[in-house]
Amino acid sequence: MFDLKHYLAEKRRSINTALDQWCGETDSPSRIVQAMRYSLTAGGKRLRPILCLAAAEAVGGDPDAALVPACALEMIHTYSLIHDDLPAMDDDDLRRGRPTSHIQFDEATALLAGDALLTMAFEILAKEGDPAGGDPARRMRIIHEIAAAAGYQGMIEGQMRDMAAEGAALDAASLAEMHSLKTGALIRASVAAGAISGGADPARIEDLTQYAGRIGLAFQVADDILNVEGDPGVMGKAAGTDRDRKKSTYPALLGLEGSRRFSLRLVEEALHAIAGFDGGADPLRAIARYIIERKR
Amino acid sequence: MFDLKHYLAEKRRSINTALDQWCGETDSPSRIVQAMRYSLTAGGKRLRPILCLAAAEAVGGDPDAALVPACALEMIHTYSLIHDDLPAMDDDDLRRGRPTSHIQFDEATALLAGDALLTMAFEILAKEGDPAGGDPARRMRIIHEIAAAAGYQGMIEGQMRDMAAEGAALDAASLAEMHSLKTGALIRASVAAGAISGGADPARIEDLTQYAGRIGLAFQVADDILNVEGDPGVMGKAAGTDRDRKKSTYPALLGLEGSRRFSLRLVEEALHAIAGFDGGADPLRAIARYIIERKR
Repeated sequence: MFDLKHYLAEKRRSINTALDQWCGETDSPSRIVQAMRYSLTAGGKRLRPILCLAAAEAVGGDPDAALVPACALEMIHTYSLIHDDLPAMDDDDLRRGRPTSHIQFDEATALLAGDALLTMAFEILAKEGDPAGGDPARRMRIIHEIAAAAGYQGMIEGQMRDMAAEGAALDAASLAEMHSLKTGALIRASVAAGAISGGADPARIEDLTQYAGRIGLAFQVADDILNVEGDPGVMGKAAGTDRDRKKSTYPALLGLEGSRRFSLRLVEEALHAIAGFDGGADPLRAIARYIIERKR
Repeated sequence: MFDLKHYLAEKRRSINTALDQWCGETDSPSRIVQAMRYSLTAGGKRLRPILCLAAAEAVGGDPDAALVPACALEMIHTYSLIHDDLPAMDDDDLRRGRPTSHIQFDEATALLAGDALLTMAFEILAKEGDPAGGDPARRMRIIHEIAAAAGYQGMIEGQMRDMAAEGAALDAASLAEMHSLKTGALIRASVAAGAISGGADPARIEDLTQYAGRIGLAFQVADDILNVEGDPGVMGKAAGTDRDRKKSTYPALLGLEGSRRFSLRLVEEALHAIAGFDGGADPLRAIARYIIERKR
């Protein structure tokens, strides 16, 4: 029986060690390094980097070789949270139970810490380690995949739509498309980057991208459900905030029971997409199930 | 006699054409694309991309092959201006005679347009064209050079120091170091990226980096002088703003005459650094002189 808890803990440890090495000295006097480290070490789930490593493993690659793109993806995810929390965007004071960056430091520092983490992602992709087994063309594909997913046709367009939709009621298709851009694009890129690093052929990359699209949306549906009925003490953030902000959510569209059924169906489709993979994909299978069972 | 005016106009044309192709459709309904284009087409001097192309030429390379890094550098420069103008930073309403991005659009859109331009720089570096004559290792070096210059040990650290210094009187060494990070790092990377793209050996790259360090600082000294005695109508921005904001400037430290002598000396040192180059470096020589003679 595959032990997911152990697997996640082990991957988180190697990701955290790698992030720690790349993100400046622990005792750096530089305020920008302090702000970058503050958000990068705030105890995130490390979902994107773990998916990247697990995808490399699923195609028979060396997960350690995918550590550079894995860390770059976490830096990009962290930058997006810092900017999302700013007063001009969601104006959040708390993230994972701690003051957000602009509360802990100041708004300008938070803005620049986000910029710096985004930039650093590409710095390590172009310099450190060798995430693609010595094949520079493969490495360039990884950089392009991640940049495109994070950019104006991916995550950033999703953030624009999320803001535009606040207060309005989206239908199911528009809500899915918004999530597919805002969080789905980077999750798909995480799996694709790992698969490219592991030397997968195009058909396998496509299967894994299908998998990632489904679990990315399932993750959002589960998030919406947690926002309704989650325990703020366990989640490290307030519940009920979506309703207060009049955000479009799956529970509002489908009800709680309908949302649960929808997330289950998405996980089944994700598992189906990688049904042809061998035991190397067991971590991905376990992660798919975990995503809708988690409590935070 | 080398005709700089013609050279600059020609390079600007090819840079603007390339930027236009890469930055989404002209009639895109996407608000983020509109905001990206608004700032990217605001009529900048295109100093960084021109330096990149001229450096490629100076080492005997094909300047057209350096168009991708040239445009990436302009995207990064533009993103830094958008974020710099935000209320949390310099809180400027006007840039190049037009409303800044957060005035024309809104703060969240300006923030995300900056993020999107930074991300797009790396997207085109990893995908479009072939800025390094088919040598992927060289191309990776260009990406790394640009990311490091734009990041927490380069431009962003410079912005942090600039903010920290507001209201305080910096000495000449601290002022030079701040500029060397805030604007110098990206100017040095512009020349280095062009040189790498053109196939330069390390000694030539080092000479060109020396050149760029000097003209980068000369540019700032000239900016400080223009801020005291420039014509707001010609510059497209207000004069006297540095004094109003109690910014540390060269005229305050060295006086106007002393600042002029200092900028002249920097240009002489820049020319000395590339004295061993042939006529291919004439554009760089003319740009060095132009930088302290310009009126805006």
